Amino acid sequence: MTPPIVAVIGGGQLARMMTPPATALGITLRVLVESDQASAACAAHETVVGLPTDPDAIERLLAAPRPDVVTWEHEHIPADVFEACEKAGVPARPGLEALRFAQDKIQMRARMDELGLPNPAWREVRSAADLEAFLADNGGTAVLKTARGGYDGKGVRIVSSAVEAKDWLDASANGGPRLLVEAKVPFTRELAAQVARRPSGEVRTWPVVESIQRDGVCSEVISPAPQLSAERAALAQEVAARIATELGVTGVLAVELFETADGLIINELAMRPHNSGHWTIEGSVTSQFEQHLRAVLDLPLGDTAPLAPVTVMANVLGGSRSHLEGSHAEAADAGAKVHLYGKGVRPGRKVGHVTVTGTDSEQTYARAVAAATIVRDGGAA
Amino acid sequence: MTPPIVAVIGGGQLARMMTPPATALGITLRVLVESDQASAACAAHETVVGLPTDPDAIERLLAAPRPDVVTWEHEHIPADVFEACEKAGVPARPGLEALRFAQDKIQMRARMDELGLPNPAWREVRSAADLEAFLADNGGTAVLKTARGGYDGKGVRIVSSAVEAKDWLDASANGGPRLLVEAKVPFTRELAAQVARRPSGEVRTWPVVESIQRDGVCSEVISPAPQLSAERAALAQEVAARIATELGVTGVLAVELFETADGLIINELAMRPHNSGHWTIEGSVTSQFEQHLRAVLDLPLGDTAPLAPVTVMANVLGGSRSHLEGSHAEAADAGAKVHLYGKGVRPGRKVGHVTVTGTDSEQTYARAVAAATIVRDGGAA
Repeated sequence: MTPPIVAVIGGGQLARMMTPPATALGITLRVLVESDQASAACAAHETVVGLPTDPDAIERLLAAPRPDVVTWEHEHIPADVFEACEKAGVPARPGLEALRFAQDKIQMRARMDELGLPNPAWREVRSAADLEAFLADNGGTAVLKTARGGYDGKGVRIVSSAVEAKDWLDASANGGPRLLVEAKVPFTRELAAQVARRPSGEVRTWPVVESIQRDGVCSEVISPAPQLSAERAALAQEVAARIATELGVTGVLAVELFETADGLIINELAMRPHNSGHWTIEGSVTSQFEQHLRAVLDLPLGDTAPLAPVTVMANVLGGSRSHLEGSHAEAADAGAKVHLYGKGVRPGRKVGHVTVTGTDSEQTYARAVAAATIVRDGGAA
Repeated sequence: MTPPIVAVIGGGQLARMMTPPATALGITLRVLVESDQASAACAAHETVVGLPTDPDAIERLLAAPRPDVVTWEHEHIPADVFEACEKAGVPARPGLEALRFAQDKIQMRARMDELGLPNPAWREVRSAADLEAFLADNGGTAVLKTARGGYDGKGVRIVSSAVEAKDWLDASANGGPRLLVEAKVPFTRELAAQVARRPSGEVRTWPVVESIQRDGVCSEVISPAPQLSAERAALAQEVAARIATELGVTGVLAVELFETADGLIINELAMRPHNSGHWTIEGSVTSQFEQHLRAVLDLPLGDTAPLAPVTVMANVLGGSRSHLEGSHAEAADAGAKVHLYGKGVRPGRKVGHVTVTGTDSEQTYARAVAAATIVRDGGAA
């Protein structure tokens, strides 16, 4: 047997961060990158330049020596890719039967209902009348979403009337993305439960985290979620493990949850390493990136125990500087672990993150935010 | 300013393990590898194939965009390389003024004497008579060494008479390696003190470790060294910090020490990441590989605090299997962190290591050794 080859579709920071554990485990990581300037391009062991919609690029990705498995760092994988994998005899993990629930929010909500898992009130929207009826029944304001293609707050809109959604409704009626509407959940905060599952069935969960969002984008993650009751933490982990098992997910699954006064409600699913799990690189015995590789190769999963009482991850959301340096943050805090993604800086774009481990949630949070701010803006605190 | 480029001479596992922190810090790692099959070749961001003795290869390593600094993963760096770096205006770190003490054991012993640091009895050996005189004065048995080129027990021989050293003495008299002889130290165990120093002077030390050797090769490392008195630990760290400062070392320095009933004696110096520091990848806030990059770039050094009460590293010394897999070890111990070096397996060759963190030295040691054995031999325990 030769060393395993894992093919990854998508050349962003998630593929980039799969590389270190791949190197350690003797796995060759072959990444389909959009360009040779992609975040993962310089880090990957082998690269194929192309888009997942390009059959030639997929053919090169699957060429001999054939990968042992194909996986993804985002959900926007055309059905043709699954056919190509099947034809080449290379397993695709997670498979389309699972991934479609992360690709399509209508399918996801319907499946959660079938499983009796906690959804908000929701319905598919085929017309202005559908939307108006839902608004009338649900307090007059709701969350309209495109079923596919959204991320980081894109494809999501708060609406109080069908008029405000005319463009999306028209587009949808003319072959554009299908729409769904969800009740606005009166949540107190957002949580995420992350789990890994391998094809042979083993499942492991990480501690449940709090995810702090600004303008629809994850800003910081605190692990474990402060002051979360043991009962709710266990419930969140059970929900994540149940979804992974019932949907046949292979690899890492993140379940984003709303915490309300009454309990938990499922927000979104991501079937890949996820921003809410970056803390695991320093904060857990096994990182989400290593675990994803182990899971898709059907290797035994690693221990998910935390390494410190508290770990906080703060995203570096691009500012006005053209080039980032971690050294300023390091100067201010020798314990800050800086991760730069090698991406061009645009305002609000995720261009890196910082992780700090500690013993106190508030202090550790303040350190992580301060270090991420320094990476973004330059200069020592 | 563009992202920094660090050039590394040597394509073994030490350069390979510099890659993950380089990726995280947005540093481009350009590695001079002996072949495209070298351990570091697939992991490095850029590779130049060639030997450090080849001026063309060095020219390509230093070509534009010029690296910000050149460093090494071994000490066997010809003086010509330093001249080429100077001509190109690229700093070499550690510089020759420091590195020569790691390259040449006679220079090292003489310098330690000058600094009043704890040497064994020793002398340079220019003739059989020199050696016989030393043996007569030092109990009849001693350690003969070549001044240059030794590693992992090579270039070291226990002798009781000059006859046993005839080949080396003859070679030395005919332009071969110079020789030195050292008293056999009645040590109870071996320790290592690791330290990093940046050009602007900042120094940070890691906890002092115990290094267990078999047949002259490091087998396991326990951090911190069990039952080491606080006084001796502090002394070992002071010795390492003093050597780093007095010799002007930039980068990571490992000082191997003998512990005796009476105190500590310096064994060897390594001016690069070292096997005794592999435990820092999982066991310390800042790994030796990240710290070396920060130090040679003159960036602020990272926190060296341990992350767990005990960390044990066990080397995988090659057996008879042609291909190693970490998955067996992972099956037996979900907390074992496996590092494979992508090297061909030869008996006794360092082909990987396993790290386990825990709370109890003996249990953690047993787990690490068991996992390393499984990686070497295959099959679950």
